[in-house]
Amino acid sequence: MLERRKPIQVGEAVQRIMEHQLPGATELVSINESFGRFLSEDIIATSDVPHFDRAPYDGFAVRSVDTSVASQSNPVEFEVVDHIGAGAVSTKVVGQNQAVRIMTGAMMPEGTDAVVMFEVAQDYQKDGKPFMSIKRSFKKGDNVSFTGEDAKQGEILVNKGTLINPGIQAMLATFGYKRVPVAKKPLVGLFATGTELLEVEEELVPGKIRNSNSHMIAAQIERAGGIVHYLGKLPDEFNTCFEAVKNALNEVDVLITTGGVSVGDFDYLPAIYEKLGAEVFFNKVAMRPGSVTTVANNNGKILFGLSGNPSACYVGFELFARPIIRRMLFSEKPHLRREKAVLEVDFLKANPFTRFVRSSVFIEDGRLKVAPSGLDKSNIIMSLSGANSLTILPGGTRGFTAGSEVAVLLLEDQTGSEWPW
Amino acid sequence: MLERRKPIQVGEAVQRIMEHQLPGATELVSINESFGRFLSEDIIATSDVPHFDRAPYDGFAVRSVDTSVASQSNPVEFEVVDHIGAGAVSTKVVGQNQAVRIMTGAMMPEGTDAVVMFEVAQDYQKDGKPFMSIKRSFKKGDNVSFTGEDAKQGEILVNKGTLINPGIQAMLATFGYKRVPVAKKPLVGLFATGTELLEVEEELVPGKIRNSNSHMIAAQIERAGGIVHYLGKLPDEFNTCFEAVKNALNEVDVLITTGGVSVGDFDYLPAIYEKLGAEVFFNKVAMRPGSVTTVANNNGKILFGLSGNPSACYVGFELFARPIIRRMLFSEKPHLRREKAVLEVDFLKANPFTRFVRSSVFIEDGRLKVAPSGLDKSNIIMSLSGANSLTILPGGTRGFTAGSEVAVLLLEDQTGSEWPW
Repeated sequence: MLERRKPIQVGEAVQRIMEHQLPGATELVSINESFGRFLSEDIIATSDVPHFDRAPYDGFAVRSVDTSVASQSNPVEFEVVDHIGAGAVSTKVVGQNQAVRIMTGAMMPEGTDAVVMFEVAQDYQKDGKPFMSIKRSFKKGDNVSFTGEDAKQGEILVNKGTLINPGIQAMLATFGYKRVPVAKKPLVGLFATGTELLEVEEELVPGKIRNSNSHMIAAQIERAGGIVHYLGKLPDEFNTCFEAVKNALNEVDVLITTGGVSVGDFDYLPAIYEKLGAEVFFNKVAMRPGSVTTVANNNGKILFGLSGNPSACYVGFELFARPIIRRMLFSEKPHLRREKAVLEVDFLKANPFTRFVRSSVFIEDGRLKVAPSGLDKSNIIMSLSGANSLTILPGGTRGFTAGSEVAVLLLEDQTGSEWPW
Repeated sequence: MLERRKPIQVGEAVQRIMEHQLPGATELVSINESFGRFLSEDIIATSDVPHFDRAPYDGFAVRSVDTSVASQSNPVEFEVVDHIGAGAVSTKVVGQNQAVRIMTGAMMPEGTDAVVMFEVAQDYQKDGKPFMSIKRSFKKGDNVSFTGEDAKQGEILVNKGTLINPGIQAMLATFGYKRVPVAKKPLVGLFATGTELLEVEEELVPGKIRNSNSHMIAAQIERAGGIVHYLGKLPDEFNTCFEAVKNALNEVDVLITTGGVSVGDFDYLPAIYEKLGAEVFFNKVAMRPGSVTTVANNNGKILFGLSGNPSACYVGFELFARPIIRRMLFSEKPHLRREKAVLEVDFLKANPFTRFVRSSVFIEDGRLKVAPSGLDKSNIIMSLSGANSLTILPGGTRGFTAGSEVAVLLLEDQTGSEWPW
């Protein structure tokens, strides 16, 4: 007998999942390992930057008051009383018509309030002592980087949930974050199902294919920011299968299965969810591919029953599992980034279900355009390798023509969307 | 005395470097570790996909010829002689008005050439035997995935130099790539210079700052695809310094130094290049920030002498060092991806040098727009953390007004440009 399932809309499906989001956790990692991780706390300036007035150029630190009368016809002479590089602090107090030769980054000597760049000074020796002269005046603060100019102590500089990029690394170092508070990577369990599956090293035999979904989803988990805990292939026997799922739930934050979730004669998962007593959020979504996706909550752990079909599996992960993982990474924008693009080809055939077309977004003269990345059959894994986006074609009675504006979800982007539906 | 350096244009600087590009190398890694690596060989289909005719849906496999007379008024009955799931191979040869109950992914039984989906069949028992009937005809090939439909054996599917994404992972598994040929990550040595530098764990003292450049560049090396070999701070004494650089060159593919490359009184690197006998490609570029960048070749190793100024250091790495690393990863598009965007703010002041403004590209209604990510002072590291792009403002006698189209280089994008200059 064919089980009848009632499909729900994609947005509603995502909403039901997000109501059960899991809490994130913090761990401290060395700054040398923090690149590419997600901040679990706001980054606060632990000091002013710079934390002393400094020279942004090589030159001579002077008292601006002494330069006021300098002009082309009236050069003013300064005795150079010290010479400091970055990191050094002059012990001199600079007096009238005195200067300190200073390198970029060095602290302004006491008494000085402007820097004369080498290019506008003439330096020379007189009686074995260094001097320089200038032919223009300088104002207080000319060529000086002032304390707190870049950042003020206590200021929030980067919000938690942000992916750490090279600029943030520099900031963390500047503020002495030897250990960085980052989101613990969610542990995502992964089971494959299907007697047709061979391991990657096995020879092909009639009727069997190599297990590609597990490798694909493992990469998607990594891309989303999780850690993969691959649990192997579920056994064929129901009770063993049930025990395996039940035990796995104790070990991981989120459990993903691929295949076995449909209404096929050998699909165990619906019965396993039932025996677990899991709260099934939905078991059918009005979308193509991926309509048979099932998501359930079992004592605070979320189970994602993705389709065994590669494309459906791929799309199901990105729409449903990714935001749960990203939320555990403290992201305020856990969903795939949604943008508008110009459709480059026709999709004339209408479909009652919303379609997610594996596609390639590109930019032409500053404008986003999108074309399918391969044949749009749900069993064609080839089109997945070229996909950097999913084009959303809303379900309904009409097709879509080239030149129309469509929404796209960007797969390789770290920005995210707050709510794309 | 002030050394006079002759600046060259950015494009010419990059070209001089790329003429000395370094060869890439291959290593084999487990498929479980290949996500995010760069392919060092083309990926070739090692078999047809699918490698047998299969059912893309649950249903009944039949001989289409037997369905030709079926209609609403004339149902045709089939005896169901077998029942197979994916992975199983029916031992039956299907004869006239016989059918095999078949699950998605299973191999088409001998004699059959079409699949009747459950939805359009009525199944029932007769004398304890399973039967089904249909009220419409099917053509040969209806609902069948044919051998080689997705990929033909021997076809080149992905080119070397491509970053491995989840779709490519699936493909690698499908074709039995248990070990994947990927580009060996270039080993990039990194020295900091500057007596003003404190380690990240040290307390601030007047005149000194924490070493942020090394952490920033380390992250940039990782983002570009290299491995960081941090060599610490160069000593202050010339000969020790020279020996350290010379020894480092034996250990790494590329050597980056930050700071000490200018014409400041305590800048050793120019003298070190000279003593090494290195071929200096340039020591000044007509750009802001980063004009004092020096790049040199020493016996086939490339030395990047980046400025000690954080922004100049950042930009210098992305323009000059990144493409060398990416080329060693077999990329055909080793440079930052260049696109056009609409400038959101005025840059009215002209600058004779080409400016690279740390900026934030965003998309509005399918159009790229760009605004500075912070104050555009070259010593402001804060603006680096929000930068996802560099806006190119060509040098000249005029400024730029909001609304004009400008070129941007995308920092977080893996697509790259063949030649953006």
